[in-house]
Amino acid sequence: MRTVIGVVGGAVVSHDALHNAYSVGRLIAERGWVLLNGGRNAGVMEASARGANEAGGLVVGILPADNTTGVAPSVDIAIPTGMGDARNAINVLASQVVIALPGGPGTISEVALALKAGRNVVLLGFPLGVPFAAYYERGQLADVSTPHEAVAAVAALLDDPEHS
Amino acid sequence: MRTVIGVVGGAVVSHDALHNAYSVGRLIAERGWVLLNGGRNAGVMEASARGANEAGGLVVGILPADNTTGVAPSVDIAIPTGMGDARNAINVLASQVVIALPGGPGTISEVALALKAGRNVVLLGFPLGVPFAAYYERGQLADVSTPHEAVAAVAALLDDPEHS
Amino acid sequence: MRTVIGVVGGAVVSHDALHNAYSVGRLIAERGWVLLNGGRNAGVMEASARGANEAGGLVVGILPADNTTGVAPSVDIAIPTGMGDARNAINVLASQVVIALPGGPGTISEVALALKAGRNVVLLGFPLGVPFAAYYERGQLADVSTPHEAVAAVAALLDDPEHS
Amino acid sequence: MRTVIGVVGGAVVSHDALHNAYSVGRLIAERGWVLLNGGRNAGVMEASARGANEAGGLVVGILPADNTTGVAPSVDIAIPTGMGDARNAINVLASQVVIALPGGPGTISEVALALKAGRNVVLLGFPLGVPFAAYYERGQLADVSTPHEAVAAVAALLDDPEHS
Repeated sequence: MRTVIGVVGGAVVSHDALHNAYSVGRLIAERGWVLLNGGRNAGVMEASARGANEAGGLVVGILPADNTTGVAPSVDIAIPTGMGDARNAINVLASQVVIALPGGPGTISEVALALKAGRNVVLLGFPLGVPFAAYYERGQLADVSTPHEAVAAVAALLDDPEHS
Repeated sequence: MRTVIGVVGGAVVSHDALHNAYSVGRLIAERGWVLLNGGRNAGVMEASARGANEAGGLVVGILPADNTTGVAPSVDIAIPTGMGDARNAINVLASQVVIALPGGPGTISEVALALKAGRNVVLLGFPLGVPFAAYYERGQLADVSTPHEAVAAVAALLDDPEHS
Repeated sequence: MRTVIGVVGGAVVSHDALHNAYSVGRLIAERGWVLLNGGRNAGVMEASARGANEAGGLVVGILPADNTTGVAPSVDIAIPTGMGDARNAINVLASQVVIALPGGPGTISEVALALKAGRNVVLLGFPLGVPFAAYYERGQLADVSTPHEAVAAVAALLDDPEHS
Repeated sequence: MRTVIGVVGGAVVSHDALHNAYSVGRLIAERGWVLLNGGRNAGVMEASARGANEAGGLVVGILPADNTTGVAPSVDIAIPTGMGDARNAINVLASQVVIALPGGPGTISEVALALKAGRNVVLLGFPLGVPFAAYYERGQLADVSTPHEAVAAVAALLDDPEHS
């Protein structure tokens, strides 16, 4: 079974966030992991898929719609769910670790659902602060500032015998 | 069609939050609205259902499990979904306005999904601050400190011709 | 907790099927049960909701869309799910017994999901035959030809100590 | 984007059905298509995944549980959904064509949901007859008796300009 790493983030984000998403995608692919994201042809989804694709990686897109209209061109395996934002719960269950880049309430819902499901979440340039203080304290949630730090944090979690 | 107001909040919360949940439930029922929550026999779900029930109201519980084990005794209509936390998306879509009391990441996911779905959210004793600043600014999210304020805020939103 | 009976069937059906749906709705309400269906303003959904409503009953509609556009006017509590046909799984989990009237593949999927979930299904004018032979044999599935027979069959199942 | 072919069928089936599932898996992989199924380590799911895997193909398993316990060992990409049988709707939406082998009501629900979603379904040793007569007539549903016939039927559908 392949290691699947989720990348979540907004459809409309800053140039820096897009650049980070692209780099995270490349680094995930270079590690040999599968990249899973929300699959749409926008923002963090498009950029991270493109990064992984250009590095020869495999990209799974879990789409909110019931068809593949609007899928990012770098997605290899499109999974239309027809479930709208309820598919956010699937995105995080299907990821061994989640990297979150800047986004709106959809992204925050994925961070929250990931934490509830026991997943570790690495926040790349997206500090969430007080409402999630308990998860920072127990080390389930961490802020990083570069794509390399994000992927190194994921690698450390995957190697950790305490982390299932 | 009945007006349905969602109440979300944690399964393990403070005595004050339980008291507020009970009072919010009563006040919702007294307004003639249906109370919708996560249906479990714990915390904000149990207390708000009991409050509505004791005031003669109708309570709908949208359960994560595929059966009614563990449903709060004050729930009139139990809807087991078998979808785990993906049912959080349903909780907010089925509510015209959402009142959120203190809770953990499950509750935060419901606030976030509600905002994404265009619902107004009233936070009762559960300020979320910075990550949701844009929604506070546009008035889609508001902090209140008493059950009466929460229900008055809902009533004002339902009366507002700008608010669908 | 109220007893909830599911009624499933097509959006475009014969005059006879519509008449049966209306009558089943009335009879469910007269028994004091809640009627749950797919909530749309069409076919078996609309007619059964109207029947229950005119007899003073309570109607819950579990909608495929993420909003209440197109809801049947007799629905009291609309639950938009935003999940398309995945909501068929909820329809049957939320029903203690399911009555199926004529319909297309959506209706057949609900019969099949109900049987898989351990629900008894009463087929009113909708014999399904060979593919479900094992379920007819064990008594989990039965053909009836009138609304009174359908509701009497449900009542017998609810009274049966073997039937949870 | 890769072509994804869904294979559905029971967890407990005959020796012949298992053999057909294995062969269908091999043939799907040899065509360069991705095999998608329910992912569990049983019956048609396990055998078809193993066939595809041994022919060097890629296997996606859409699991009903919220974790990967009980996943078939030949699954490359496991997608736990935590949605129980509601995930059947995803299985068919994510497949361009569906091949159905013998199974119980879960399998029938997937055939029905696939037809409703506009997917073509090839029934391999699993004739469903009367309840689906309209779909046989319009050519959206077809019976075949060997794995080679099933995969040839899928190939013809994928090549057909009328078939999206």
